[in-house]
Parts: sequence; C-alpha cells; structure tokens
Amino acid sequence: MTAPLHEAHPAGPGRALPDTQQGMRRRNLARVMHTLRAEGPLSRAAVASHIGLTRAAVSSLVDELIRSGLLEELGPERPGRVGRPGSALAVSGHGPAGIGAEIGVDHLAVCAVDLRGEIRARAVRHGVNRGRSPEPVTAELTDLVRQVVAEAESLGLWPAGLAVAVPGLVARDARTVVRAPNLDWHDTDIGALLPAEFAPTVGNEANFGALAELWLGDGTPHDFLHVSAEIGIGAAVVVDGRLLHGTRGFAGELGHVPVHPDGPGCPCGGRGCLEQYAGEEAVLRAAGLEPGEDRVGLLSHRATDGDENVRRALREAGEALGIALTGAVNLLDPENVVLGGALAGLAPWLLPSLRQELAKRTAGPACPVTVSELGPEGPLLGAAHSVVRAVLDDPARVAERA
Amino acid sequence: MTAPLHEAHPAGPGRALPDTQQGMRRRNLARVMHTLRAEGPLSRAAVASHIGLTRAAVSSLVDELIRSGLLEELGPERPGRVGRPGSALAVSGHGPAGIGAEIGVDHLAVCAVDLRGEIRARAVRHGVNRGRSPEPVTAELTDLVRQVVAEAESLGLWPAGLAVAVPGLVARDARTVVRAPNLDWHDTDIGALLPAEFAPTVGNEANFGALAELWLGDGTPHDFLHVSAEIGIGAAVVVDGRLLHGTRGFAGELGHVPVHPDGPGCPCGGRGCLEQYAGEEAVLRAAGLEPGEDRVGLLSHRATDGDENVRRALREAGEALGIALTGAVNLLDPENVVLGGALAGLAPWLLPSLRQELAKRTAGPACPVTVSELGPEGPLLGAAHSVVRAVLDDPARVAERA
Repeated sequence: MTAPLHEAHPAGPGRALPDTQQGMRRRNLARVMHTLRAEGPLSRAAVASHIGLTRAAVSSLVDELIRSGLLEELGPERPGRVGRPGSALAVSGHGPAGIGAEIGVDHLAVCAVDLRGEIRARAVRHGVNRGRSPEPVTAELTDLVRQVVAEAESLGLWPAGLAVAVPGLVARDARTVVRAPNLDWHDTDIGALLPAEFAPTVGNEANFGALAELWLGDGTPHDFLHVSAEIGIGAAVVVDGRLLHGTRGFAGELGHVPVHPDGPGCPCGGRGCLEQYAGEEAVLRAAGLEPGEDRVGLLSHRATDGDENVRRALREAGEALGIALTGAVNLLDPENVVLGGALAGLAPWLLPSLRQELAKRTAGPACPVTVSELGPEGPLLGAAHSVVRAVLDDPARVAERA
Repeated sequence: MTAPLHEAHPAGPGRALPDTQQGMRRRNLARVMHTLRAEGPLSRAAVASHIGLTRAAVSSLVDELIRSGLLEELGPERPGRVGRPGSALAVSGHGPAGIGAEIGVDHLAVCAVDLRGEIRARAVRHGVNRGRSPEPVTAELTDLVRQVVAEAESLGLWPAGLAVAVPGLVARDARTVVRAPNLDWHDTDIGALLPAEFAPTVGNEANFGALAELWLGDGTPHDFLHVSAEIGIGAAVVVDGRLLHGTRGFAGELGHVPVHPDGPGCPCGGRGCLEQYAGEEAVLRAAGLEPGEDRVGLLSHRATDGDENVRRALREAGEALGIALTGAVNLLDPENVVLGGALAGLAPWLLPSLRQELAKRTAGPACPVTVSELGPEGPLLGAAHSVVRAVLDDPARVAERA
C-alpha cells in the first residue's frame, strides 16, 4: 500500500532520468505534474501549450497520471473560454503524501504533506532527546509516524516515503548519522531503526531547512547560503537550485570555520571555530546564563527585556557570524544569506553586528542577509516536501507501484 | 572559415541540450565523440556497443561527424578480430582546434589544442603587463593569437574558438574583467578588445587551471578545491565535475577569506585576509626581499639554498593557507585540495605547515592536499581545452557551421 520512492538528494525535474524514449516520457510526466502544481488547474490543451507538446501526447500522459492517482479531474472548465470546454485538471489532494519527520534535541515532530503542498496531518512530542540512545528515540518517532500516516490515510492519502531531519552529519547513504554531537550519537544506521515500509531516508536538518527555503520561501534565489542552528551551527549551500552535499555529505559545516584561529578549543579538533562564539551554548555562557530547555526562548526573552549581558553576547555572536560568513561569501559568491532555524528567532539582535562585520570586510556592496519566514519549521517541512518533490520529479515511479 | 562555438561555462556532455528528438541526436553525437576521444580508435560496431545504440544509428551519427571534419577513418581495422573487418574511427587531428590564451602579470601565452588533446602550436611573450592599459596588452595578445592560428591552419586545423585566462574576477558574461588588481584593470570589456572572428570568451585563471586539472590531471576527483596563485591567491571549486561560478561569477575568492580577523588591512576592504599572509608579495615582504619579475623563482631558489628567512616566510604562509583551507573544507567537503599555479612550485616549503594546520584543526582524517602536475601551464591548457570540450559536448554546432 505504500510506495517507497523518494530520493534523499532530489535533483530537480527528471534530471537523472535516462536518455531514452522511455526516459523522455518519464521526464514529460514530470513536466505535466510540475506545470499543474505551479499553474493548475488547467485543461489538457493549456498543459500542452505550456510544455510545448501536442494535445494527444499530453492526453496520454494525463491518463497515466490520473490512473496513478497523481492528478484528478475537476469537471468541465468554467464557461466563457473559446472552443469546446475541456475538463480542468489538478494535482491530486488524495494521492501520495510526503511524510516528514524531525529529531530535535528537545522534540520530535512528524507531518504529512500532499502533492499540492498542503500539510494534512501533524504530530509533535516535546522532551529532551539529548543523551538518549537512538533506539528509544526512533521507536517514539515511529509511533508518531504511524499516528500521522493513519490520519493521512483517513483523508484518502497514502505515504510515498519518509524523510527524517537530524541535527548532525549524515553520510551520503542517507541512512547513517555519522556525528550528531548534540544528541551524542555517532556512526548509527538510523535508517535501519525506522519502519522499512516507509522507505525512510535521513538527512541533515540544515539541508532540509535550506530546501524548504528554496521550495517554499517567497522569492528565494537559486544560489544562497542557509545558516541555521539548534545547539550547533549548520549551513547548507544551494547552488543553481540544488544542494551541495560534499564528498562525504558533510558540506556546510559553517560552525567549524575558524573565526579566531588561536581561540578556545572546539570538540571538532579545531580552535576558535564559529560555534565557540555563536553557538547557543556559547552565547548562554557569554551572557552568564545556564543552558536549559528553551534556550532560544530564554535568550530572546531576556534580550527583549533589555538585558545588557544577553544583548552584548548576541552582538558578539553576530560579529563572529559576520567573520565566518565573509569567508563563505568569498568562496561561494551566493546571491544572499538566509538565517533560518533557531537563529531566525534571534535575528533582531544578531543581524546588526553581523551585517556591519560583512559590510566592513567587503569592498563593494555586501552580500544581503535575510531572515527565513519558515523559522524553526523549515527542516520538518523540507523533509516532507523532499518526498513530494521526488514524486513530482518522477511520477512514473509511483505509477509503477500504484 | 572559423566557427565560433565554444561556451565559457561548459556543462558536460550535452547537458544543456533541449529534450527533443533533435536534442537526443545532438547528445548522441556528443556521446560518439567522447567515446572515441576516451577509447578510440574503434569500429562503428564497438562505438555502438559502448554507447548502447544500434549500429545503424551509430553509422548515421558517424557519417555526420566525418562530414563535419570531427572524426576520421583510419582504414580497415587490424585483422584477427571476429566478423567482417570494420573501418577504425578516430577523433580528427585535422578538424577544429581550441585556441587558449593567458594574460599573465609578467607574460602572454597562446596555444592551439586539437580535438585529440594535443598541443599543436604555441607562442609566449615575456614582459610586464602590470600597470599597462588593456588595449596594448590585448593588441599584443591578438598578434600572438593570429600567429598561433596561422601555424595551426598550416597543419590543417581551424580555430573553433578562443578562451582567454586572466588573473582577476570575470563577470558571468565571460567578457568583462570586473577587477584584476594585479594588472590594475577594472570593469573592462576585454571581450570587445579581442578579435570577434574567434568568438573570444574570458575567464578567471584559477577556474581554467581547475578545469585543466579536472580534464588532464591523473586521477583528479570530481569534487575538489583548486588553489592557485600568481600575485593574488585564487581558488576554484569543482563540484561533481563542474565549476562553481557563483552568482556574479566570483566564487573561489580564497585570498580574501579572513585568517586573522584583526590582522592588516587588505585592498579588498577586509582585514587579515589570506592574501596578506600567503600572497607572493606578502611572502617576499616577510622574507625581507624586493618584489621583482620572477617572484616564485626567487623564493624557491632562496628556499632551496637554505635561506632561513625565506623558509620561515613560506612556513607561515603555509599555516595561513591551512587556516583558510580548514574553513573551506568545512564548507565544501571536497575530496581533496590541489595546489596549482605558482603555488605548485613552492609546495615543498608550504605543504608541511599547511598540512599540519589542517590536521590539527580536524577531528577525523584531514582532507588530502596534493600538488598539480600541470603547474603554471594549467590556466593556458584549461582555456584551450574548454574550447575543445565545447566541441566534443555539442558537435552539431560545428556541423552546422562546417
């Protein structure tokens, strides 16, 4: 009943499909889906004119997509148009759904997103995961997943795959958490601990956050650097609309860029890494506060109340971010930098010193820094939408299984 | 008689070609060329089995490529093979040639490379270009280009395009030098100063050096960071076999990554940039030497002779490179780092401290650092080969013009 088909590293509309007649048909199925997702509802004729195929070719593609439950017919188009009325087509709200999940340091979350991009079911459980072993955490997550899937199924949806965001480095196998220092997990095959029937894949939370920004953000460019934080500081590099993964899948470790090379030692082996100045715990320490559960809430509360120690600590964190980002911007030349995750909530106090540091280290106009509107929801949404995207990018894989 | 057809940003075998029947044929033409370039000489049957097409389909493609002068027939295959003897095919040594050029701080160079990858003609002129205006420099370069083209034509080749490497930032139009501080050029349309009949494009020398490494290096991975230097320090990021250009075309500015954020001011607007510690002039200054013409030669000569000041200066430059590269490796997770350009000649004195710095700042195994075997020839070869690659990647564009 489930069709495990999504990819951890979506490559855009049909990009990796083989260059054969059959591959061409599969790419054209993807074009129909993406056109209707972006522009729909549309008639067959309108779809044909959008993607430059004949109406007969589009009809055959549409028939296959309707049979697989990916498209639905809305009935005759509203009158007033020229020619014989066609039946309007739309992406199905009852077909496959992407199941996204997040293992946070202090919470677990799961949601189901349909092909139209609507969140149809969700569940959250608060509680500290730090220091717990992976088995009970993934067991608890699996309960939440089953709960969300049951709710989605009651709405006529079926799970097309499960993507799980974790705050750590994930190998390119999209299963193994190599290092998640803030959970105290390392070299663990998390994929094996998740229910196989949902074809789970695992990814870094900063990467999923960046994909959410790319797909759901308002006017997000196709080349940007997404900086996020829970306790650590992660970043994701998006180039030409695609995630830069790195050889081992570890690209984007902004938190370990040296800021003051003779600074304090870091568990990574380095000295003076960004995380030593701008990580949540470093900021709490600099502000003279104890790390508790809602660290960002505490910092933003105190800063709002005018606590000078907290404001100074955040200002200095912003400076350190500005230095590390100067290097990153010089290397990558992104169109902008987006602050997401927990950092988004602290932006009012981080941004002024961050922007000032970037500007004073740049001869021309400095790279713009904006704040994500998705905030801490980004990684969860990115995970769910990565499954949805994989369906849109290769609908034939669903069709084969439907 | 020339066919201007190369692209500044080659995208790999036919990657950008349209997804139509005609596009498929164009991609298949490219497959035939790449197969014969990598594996040739081969019979039509062998090509067909390599690329998974029928022999009839391959024959039709081969006929077109022979007509365009891109392939040649070597006569009957040597006996001893099973079946009717086929005629062996090879990439032509008399067809289009890529013209590469380099505007260096102290020299101009031009070469012609045929489709087989052989250098067939070359010319070099030494003399300081720094501080000269672009017009006389490009006029002199044009003389060299015409001289090399005439020599290539006398060998039965014809120029398929001209690519020019410059030590500076080049806009994505592949014409405009936005900033070349070591030539003292800025915002100059160099493309307009070069002979239009060769369809000139302009690119950053570090980028062309990285492409040369990718295409010609022995066992170069598809994900690496190429660091090179003339007076400035540049880098190029290769991801999945493609150059990362950046939004404005400025990616890879490793020389302006902050190493000691409170260090000396840099003309870029920053403070303590890598170039202030590891650029040629900084190293000469630290060693107490005057900058002259053959700066790298002077440094390597003195270091070989055991000059302690020079060795210390190079050791410190290696440390600074190690700090900047720690950040770059954390952000990009490349398979390795390649030292090219002038840096390759100084590697014996830079590498130990560079590697030590990288290793001590990395918890696991540090990213390997290797030395380019192409040395200072890289950018020139990369430029010429970029034209050749563009022909191999879309042979139909030559066919249309032949």
